[in-house]
Amino acid sequence: MKKFVREITSMEEDFAKWYTDIVVKAELIDYSEVRGCTILRPYGFAIWENITKILDEKFKKVGVENVSMPLLIPESLLQKEKEHIEGFAPEVAWVTMGGNEELSEKLCVRPTSEVLFCSHFARIVHSWRDLPKLYNQWCSVVRWEKTSRPFLRSVEFHWQEGHTVHESSEEARDFTLKMLNIYSDFFEKILCIPVILGRKTESEKFAGAEETYTVECMMKDGKALQSATSHYFGNGFSKAFDIKFTNRKNLEENTYQTSWGLSTRVIAAIIMSHGDNDGLVLPPDIAPIQVVIIPINFANNNQVLEKSKEIFNSIGKILRAKMDCSDQTPGWKFSNYDMKGVPIRVEIGPRDLEQNSCVIVRRDNRSKQKCGLNDLVPTIQQMLTEIKRNMYDVCMKNRDKKTIISGRESDFQNFEGFIKIPFCETEECEKYLKEKYKFSARCIPFGEHVENLKCPICGKKSSNYVFFAKAY
Amino acid sequence: MKKFVREITSMEEDFAKWYTDIVVKAELIDYSEVRGCTILRPYGFAIWENITKILDEKFKKVGVENVSMPLLIPESLLQKEKEHIEGFAPEVAWVTMGGNEELSEKLCVRPTSEVLFCSHFARIVHSWRDLPKLYNQWCSVVRWEKTSRPFLRSVEFHWQEGHTVHESSEEARDFTLKMLNIYSDFFEKILCIPVILGRKTESEKFAGAEETYTVECMMKDGKALQSATSHYFGNGFSKAFDIKFTNRKNLEENTYQTSWGLSTRVIAAIIMSHGDNDGLVLPPDIAPIQVVIIPINFANNNQVLEKSKEIFNSIGKILRAKMDCSDQTPGWKFSNYDMKGVPIRVEIGPRDLEQNSCVIVRRDNRSKQKCGLNDLVPTIQQMLTEIKRNMYDVCMKNRDKKTIISGRESDFQNFEGFIKIPFCETEECEKYLKEKYKFSARCIPFGEHVENLKCPICGKKSSNYVFFAKAY
Repeated sequence: MKKFVREITSMEEDFAKWYTDIVVKAELIDYSEVRGCTILRPYGFAIWENITKILDEKFKKVGVENVSMPLLIPESLLQKEKEHIEGFAPEVAWVTMGGNEELSEKLCVRPTSEVLFCSHFARIVHSWRDLPKLYNQWCSVVRWEKTSRPFLRSVEFHWQEGHTVHESSEEARDFTLKMLNIYSDFFEKILCIPVILGRKTESEKFAGAEETYTVECMMKDGKALQSATSHYFGNGFSKAFDIKFTNRKNLEENTYQTSWGLSTRVIAAIIMSHGDNDGLVLPPDIAPIQVVIIPINFANNNQVLEKSKEIFNSIGKILRAKMDCSDQTPGWKFSNYDMKGVPIRVEIGPRDLEQNSCVIVRRDNRSKQKCGLNDLVPTIQQMLTEIKRNMYDVCMKNRDKKTIISGRESDFQNFEGFIKIPFCETEECEKYLKEKYKFSARCIPFGEHVENLKCPICGKKSSNYVFFAKAY
Repeated sequence: MKKFVREITSMEEDFAKWYTDIVVKAELIDYSEVRGCTILRPYGFAIWENITKILDEKFKKVGVENVSMPLLIPESLLQKEKEHIEGFAPEVAWVTMGGNEELSEKLCVRPTSEVLFCSHFARIVHSWRDLPKLYNQWCSVVRWEKTSRPFLRSVEFHWQEGHTVHESSEEARDFTLKMLNIYSDFFEKILCIPVILGRKTESEKFAGAEETYTVECMMKDGKALQSATSHYFGNGFSKAFDIKFTNRKNLEENTYQTSWGLSTRVIAAIIMSHGDNDGLVLPPDIAPIQVVIIPINFANNNQVLEKSKEIFNSIGKILRAKMDCSDQTPGWKFSNYDMKGVPIRVEIGPRDLEQNSCVIVRRDNRSKQKCGLNDLVPTIQQMLTEIKRNMYDVCMKNRDKKTIISGRESDFQNFEGFIKIPFCETEECEKYLKEKYKFSARCIPFGEHVENLKCPICGKKSSNYVFFAKAY
C-alpha cells in the first residue's frame, strides 16, 4: 500500500532528493520558466495562508499595523546606508527599461525594504508623539541567488518584514526581543518545532544591524535552519536617512529601529522537521485539511455516503475538513492524504456503520482506533492536541540526540547535528570552522554563562557558548 | 469647526484636487521615490485588507483556490499570445540585469499573469478529471504608465487576478458571469455603490479576450469608473499555450478559460462615490474603524474615562472600534475622524454620564442623536444598516440625476454623466465620440433590446443600447 500514489525517494537514501520529491509530489509547488522562481500551488499556498493568518493576528495584538511599500527601489536610495548596500547589491535584479525607453536611473526589485521604510519614516515622524511606528508588510522579495531550492533559497520568495521606529534604544531593544519571542512561540506552539534562540555572531549579523537575534531549528538530518530573525538597528539607519524627532525634553534626536522577518522558509522547516518517507506530516494548526473523511465501499451503499456527509458537516463546522468520494480506490486515497500530511483520516464503511462507529487514523504516529460516531468530534479535537504534543516531542528527541556540548575540535569531524562550544567569538576561528568542517555559528544562546573555559580552536578565553551546525 | 484639522480643497472648486487632498490627508498613501509608486499607509492598507478579506471569502465559497505565480516573466513567454503581447509590451518594466551580470533574456515585471497561468495549466491539466481549475492570486503588478494618480492609475498597483480553465465554453462563460455577479454584489451590498453591468465593445475589450464584462460605477462628478472586469477567453490562450485535455468522449481538446480582476482602484471608487468636503465617508463593512468613542472633558473626570472604556469594550466585541483619549481637543478629534470617514462617532461627557446616555453622530448624513447607554450596542448595529442603505441611495440619486437616454448627438455637448444611446457599435462612431467629446463606450448593458432605432452619429441601424461617459 505504501508509496501507492507516487514514489518518493526515502530520506535515508538521499535527504535532499526526499525533500524536493515531497515539495513537488505533495503539490506544494511547480517550477516556472524563470530560474529560481516557483509557483505556489493551491495546497502549498494554503499552508502559507494559514501561517500568515496566525502570525498576522499575533503581530496585530502587539500593535503592529500592515502597510505596503513599493516593489521598486531607485539605486540612489539603496546606496544611502553603506553596509546595507554592500550586503545586498551583488544579489539584486535591476529594472533598466520602462516600456521601450531606458531609465535615467536604474531601479532594483526590492531584496528587502529597509530603505523604503526609512525614507517614509523620515517624512512622517516629527515628534515623540508620532512614535512608535510599528509597521509590517507581507510581500515577495527578489534576490539573485545563483543556486536555488524550493522554499529554502529562491530568487523570489514570500515573507513578512516588520520595521519599527522608537524614541529610545531600550524600547527598540525590547521590541526586537518581543518579536523574537512571538516567532519562538509560533514555532513551538503552532508548528510543533522546538527552537534555539540567541544572538548572531558579528559575522553572521544582518547588513546594517547592531544586533541580530535568530530562531534556529534542527532538521531531521541534523542540519540547522535559520527560521526567523529579529534585528536591532540602533540609530544607524536613522542617521543615514535623517529620521529625526523632537523628544520629550524638546530636543532633536534620531530614532531607534528594529526589523524582523519570517519567510516561506518556514515551510521547508515544517517539511524537514516532521516529514517522513510517506510524505508531509503537517502540524494541525496550519494544515489546509485537518481531517479527511473517506467513505469505503459507498458505491452501492447510499447510507455510507449519507453518514459520511453528516460527519463531514459536523466536523466541518469547527475544523478544516474534506470528504473524498471520488472514484479512486481507498488505498490510493490513503496514500494521497498521507503524502499531503493530513493530520487525521476518518474511514467509514458499511461494517463501521452497522456498529455506528468509524476508524480514525493519525498521520503522525499511524495509530488507528475505532470511534463511536457520537464521540467523533470531541475525540478528534482531543487527538489534534495529542498530535501536536507528539510532533513536538519527536522533534525534540531528534534534536537532543543530535546535540552535544563539546570542548574539543575533534568532535566536529563527521558530526551531523548541533555542537555547543565555549567560543572565543573571533572571526578567524569562525572562518576556520566554516572552511574546515562547514560548521557555521548559529547563535549565542541566551542566559548561559561561561567561566574559565577556553575556545577549543585557538585556546583563548571563551566569552560565550555558541551553537555551531551545518546549515541550510 | 469644519476643516479644523487639515484643509482640503472643496470638490465643487476642483474635484481632482479634492480627490488627491483626501488621499493624502486621510493618510491613505504617501508618495515614494519612484514615480507612480505609492506607499499604502496603515489606514489605506487596512481598507484594502478589509476588501480582500470579504472578496476572498466570496471567491472561496464558489470553489476558487489561491495560488502565487512568479513576479517575473521571460520575454519569450509573454510573446506567445499575439494580441496579448501587443496590448502589454509598451507598458512593462524590464529586468535586464541580475547582480552585476546582464541577463541572456530580459524578464518583465508582471503587468498581469495570463501567460504564467497558461503555461502552468498546460503542465498540470491532462484530463477532464483535472478540470475545472479555479485559481486566483492577490498580488501587485507593474505597468509603465506615463501619468499616474493614486489608486486610479499607477505604475504599481495591488489587485487580484482570477484565472480559470474549464472543459466547455458554456461552463467558462457561466463562470465569467458568476464572477461578474460576485463583483456586482460586492459593490452594491458591501461598498454601497450602485453599478451598471454589461459587455465591453470590441475596441474596449481586454487584449486576448473574446468577451469582456465590466462593472461600471458613476463618481460624484459624473465620470465613469471601470471598477472590475471579467473576461471570457474562449480557447485562444489555450491554443497559444497548448493546454489540452482528454475530454469525456476520450478526445483531445483545448480548454476554455476566464480571467477576472479587481484592484485598489476600488478605493478610488469609494472615495469618489461617497466622499464629501470634510473627507472620506467609508462604507461600514470595509471601514478600518467602524465606531470611534470620544470621551469629553475626561481629564478631571475619571468616571467618564471609565465609562468610555466600558463602552469601547462592549462595542469592540462585535465591531471595529477605537477610543481616542489623546490630549487633542474634541473638535480636533471630530474633524480628524470625519476626514477618515469613520461611520459612527460616540461622544460621552460628564453631563451625558449623569443621564446614563451618550451622543451618537453619523458620518454619512451628520445626524446626531442621544442614546441611552443600555441601548447603545443594538442602536449602533441598526444604525450601521441604515447608513449603508442611505449611502447607496445617495449614490443612486446622483447617478439617476446624471444619466440620460438619448438619440441626439447634441446631448453629448458639455454633458457630465452617463448617456445611453442606441448605438451602431462601429469603431468609427466610437472613435468619433471619443475624440470629439471624450466620451468612451462604457458597456452594452444586459437585457435591453433596441428596435427600429438609429445610431445618433451615423444614422445606421443600431444593434444595442450602449452607455457612454467620460471615464477615469
